Amino acid sequence: MKVAVLCGGVGGAKFVLGLRACGLVEDLTVIVNTGDDFRHLGLHVSPDIDTVLYTLAGKANPVQGWGRDGETWSFLDAVRSLGGPDWFKLGDGDLALHVLRSAMLARGDTLGEITAQFAHAWGLKTLVLPMSDDAVATRLETDRGTLEFQRYFVEHQCRPKVQSICFAGAETATAAPGTVEAIMGADVVFVAPSNPYLSIDPILAVSEIARAMRLTRAPVVAISPLIGGQAVKGPTTKLMAELGIAISNDSIAAHYGDTIDAMLHDARDAPPRNIPARASDTMMRSLDDKVRVAREAVVFAKTRA
Amino acid sequence: MKVAVLCGGVGGAKFVLGLRACGLVEDLTVIVNTGDDFRHLGLHVSPDIDTVLYTLAGKANPVQGWGRDGETWSFLDAVRSLGGPDWFKLGDGDLALHVLRSAMLARGDTLGEITAQFAHAWGLKTLVLPMSDDAVATRLETDRGTLEFQRYFVEHQCRPKVQSICFAGAETATAAPGTVEAIMGADVVFVAPSNPYLSIDPILAVSEIARAMRLTRAPVVAISPLIGGQAVKGPTTKLMAELGIAISNDSIAAHYGDTIDAMLHDARDAPPRNIPARASDTMMRSLDDKVRVAREAVVFAKTRA
Repeated sequence: MKVAVLCGGVGGAKFVLGLRACGLVEDLTVIVNTGDDFRHLGLHVSPDIDTVLYTLAGKANPVQGWGRDGETWSFLDAVRSLGGPDWFKLGDGDLALHVLRSAMLARGDTLGEITAQFAHAWGLKTLVLPMSDDAVATRLETDRGTLEFQRYFVEHQCRPKVQSICFAGAETATAAPGTVEAIMGADVVFVAPSNPYLSIDPILAVSEIARAMRLTRAPVVAISPLIGGQAVKGPTTKLMAELGIAISNDSIAAHYGDTIDAMLHDARDAPPRNIPARASDTMMRSLDDKVRVAREAVVFAKTRA
Repeated sequence: MKVAVLCGGVGGAKFVLGLRACGLVEDLTVIVNTGDDFRHLGLHVSPDIDTVLYTLAGKANPVQGWGRDGETWSFLDAVRSLGGPDWFKLGDGDLALHVLRSAMLARGDTLGEITAQFAHAWGLKTLVLPMSDDAVATRLETDRGTLEFQRYFVEHQCRPKVQSICFAGAETATAAPGTVEAIMGADVVFVAPSNPYLSIDPILAVSEIARAMRLTRAPVVAISPLIGGQAVKGPTTKLMAELGIAISNDSIAAHYGDTIDAMLHDARDAPPRNIPARASDTMMRSLDDKVRVAREAVVFAKTRA
């Protein structure tokens, strides 16, 4: 079975790991949000790509939900001693990806090529693709002014009240090689249980990808990020409230509109009204949980084919 | 007393630490070789400046003679796992200087400004100056072809036979702000016990500095890097042999020519013939050693004033 997934960071990566491990998917392509990418200390940081790579490679920190397991922090200590900025927590091992990526971008490699090289070096069987090789920057209009995503998410810890979100550069960004083909050629397409507004919307803001999502003959199933009216992690529900959106699967399904055909949602929440849905326990703590959710998603999607 | 020192890496830094700690010098300026500087993984590395900063800040690794004490290596492990180059040993804490320096250079700061900011952040009372804010690259013609300094020094571990040395960019490089003033305004100028051909020559290849060394009214005293016919560390004597130079203080004094007025040398070696000299024990292991050598150098230099 060929599967394509639109994916953000932590929650999405868990679902992808479940798909990888569930035994039902031979050919897996992950199309990852790069709207969070930014330059920090001159280095190109791709937080969601790195989270997906770390998760699939078994290198992710299972407790903090970002960064590497067994990470050290000598770099950040030294930066602090020199009066440099320490608000963004760059771990020592994590730096390797940012430094190598920046050097390879500078010599003309694309983000897609670099990501493929990293995945290959770590022996991953999953095709991990950026949504675009072009720069797309998620920016938030807030009560503290316009903030780049990482400033909002990390430095301000999602505290500012969000008024609107834009994806600078998305209008002219082309889909990264392989993304449209993966969506069009898939047997099933998933929208991972990531933040719809901050992690999935940037991907759909790339018009070629949005178009492929509408045109593909594969069933498109979203896994809702809500569990008991809350997101497991991150500002999804706070953001929905600030944007005046009712916190419900109905709102999320309506937001995705004709991009999706069906939704897998947690049994603690009401199903969306106007599209086919299946209720389940979508909390993913252990690897067993992830595999179970992935299997349910695959089985449900097959009924929609 | 105002002192200026021309200085390379480890050996020179030890002498500078002695000057700092000896209690005889109020105003100390170190003019550091940047011919070893290079770009690695897109980062600007200044090995000799960093060695001087680490040594003065008490952060230098006392055993290996380069890098930081208590260093961690997560970055290099991760680079290796990704198939990146690992021949140049970038420590995690060490990376902070390279990353910050590169980011500050990219925004238009000079190497001198950046070095001053680092020294200030670490509370150093010594003025540490690059020889030039312009790029000067030490290159070696060898039996294995032309090699950049770090390729020769680190990757090839000084094994290739050197035929000649050049300092690319030196012809047009201007002396960094403060260097000429420090030499002209000093009571004493020292040439540290660094490699004359690889660490001091690049500094003297900057014509404004060479001119100031000849014009200054301060006595200029070189501390010989030879101890019992050997350098404590590095390829000094191997290089002299390959270049057909007799390994002696006489050769080194002749090489410096009218740049120096006198030489402090180790008692195990014969003095240079044609300039005033003083013999001493110049081996610097402990801090006490460094202070003793610095005091002897200062006292000797005063007799030449």
